[in-house]
Amino acid sequence: MKFSLLTDRLIEALRCLPGVGPKSAQRMAFHILDRDREGGRQLARVLLEAVERIGRCRLCRTLSEEELCGICSASRRDRHLLCIVETPADVMAIEQATDYGGLYFVLMGHISPLDGVGPEELGLDRLAARLDEGEINEIILATNPTVEGEATAQYISELAHARGVRTTRIAHGVPLGGELEYIDSSTLSHAFSGRRDV
Amino acid sequence: MKFSLLTDRLIEALRCLPGVGPKSAQRMAFHILDRDREGGRQLARVLLEAVERIGRCRLCRTLSEEELCGICSASRRDRHLLCIVETPADVMAIEQATDYGGLYFVLMGHISPLDGVGPEELGLDRLAARLDEGEINEIILATNPTVEGEATAQYISELAHARGVRTTRIAHGVPLGGELEYIDSSTLSHAFSGRRDV
Repeated sequence: MKFSLLTDRLIEALRCLPGVGPKSAQRMAFHILDRDREGGRQLARVLLEAVERIGRCRLCRTLSEEELCGICSASRRDRHLLCIVETPADVMAIEQATDYGGLYFVLMGHISPLDGVGPEELGLDRLAARLDEGEINEIILATNPTVEGEATAQYISELAHARGVRTTRIAHGVPLGGELEYIDSSTLSHAFSGRRDV
Repeated sequence: MKFSLLTDRLIEALRCLPGVGPKSAQRMAFHILDRDREGGRQLARVLLEAVERIGRCRLCRTLSEEELCGICSASRRDRHLLCIVETPADVMAIEQATDYGGLYFVLMGHISPLDGVGPEELGLDRLAARLDEGEINEIILATNPTVEGEATAQYISELAHARGVRTTRIAHGVPLGGELEYIDSSTLSHAFSGRRDV
């Protein structure tokens, strides 16, 4: 025991949060207990409600407390286009930056055999079933340009090709505002091999 | 709305934690919802119990769910010595590093008029009443060597002097293992003016 029994339990419980070590957990516990009990109470209530009620959207698998998320249930989206992303945060980034008007499929991760994450965990069986329905004309692969993201994109493109669905990958290359001199070599080599006629 | 309504509320609620901005709150929410619902449920439960039950020790004002904290209720501590610290974490640091066997008084902060923290908020009226009881023979000032910590120590030493209680301040100087060359100038000047006969 370091502090009081219950304080110690609170510090321990806070460590379930990613990036929170013993020292920050301690600082968080003291902050809540000393200065912001109302915030702590509110956090506890919302947290409990969230873990009980938030599930996955039936269509795109993103986090949602409704059966269908806001995007999947919107009538004005193009239901023939499907963009594959790794996380709900990627959906938000695309919504904010582009005028993409189709639907999404959120993997909630990437293929990573060492962590026990295979096609099933990413809902790729459900994606295959959805492609079989024939409504999707094009799949846009927007997984991260990492080894795992590329492997996942590769796997999905094979799924789509087997069903005759057009598959595209978002472009990778030198980011706007980037200076060639400071770009890493694999991005630069990617940018060269992916060059286009102007 | 960015994510689902409830996810947004969870992200917002997580921001009551110190040092947690929008991005880390989002990462925490996704981590709990996607990978560690049991941890989230547990955190919510402990948090609720902690904000309801943890109060202050009647004697030393540290965080405690009992009327008296572990140290104040221990029979083998020297009840004539009182060490004044700013936080419960300072108590732990002293307990781990020294063989101090007296009691503590935890200010839970320092005098800071701009933040509305005066002697009353730090329980100094209660400290004065305790000194009046006459059981304390020596007060050890272990507030931080910052402007506010020094001002607080100064205020308390006046309280103690007025009641004829011996008051000491922990030594400040070059830390062990420190190299003179790299010590900041105010610490070094402090070390010189505080030099002792050997």
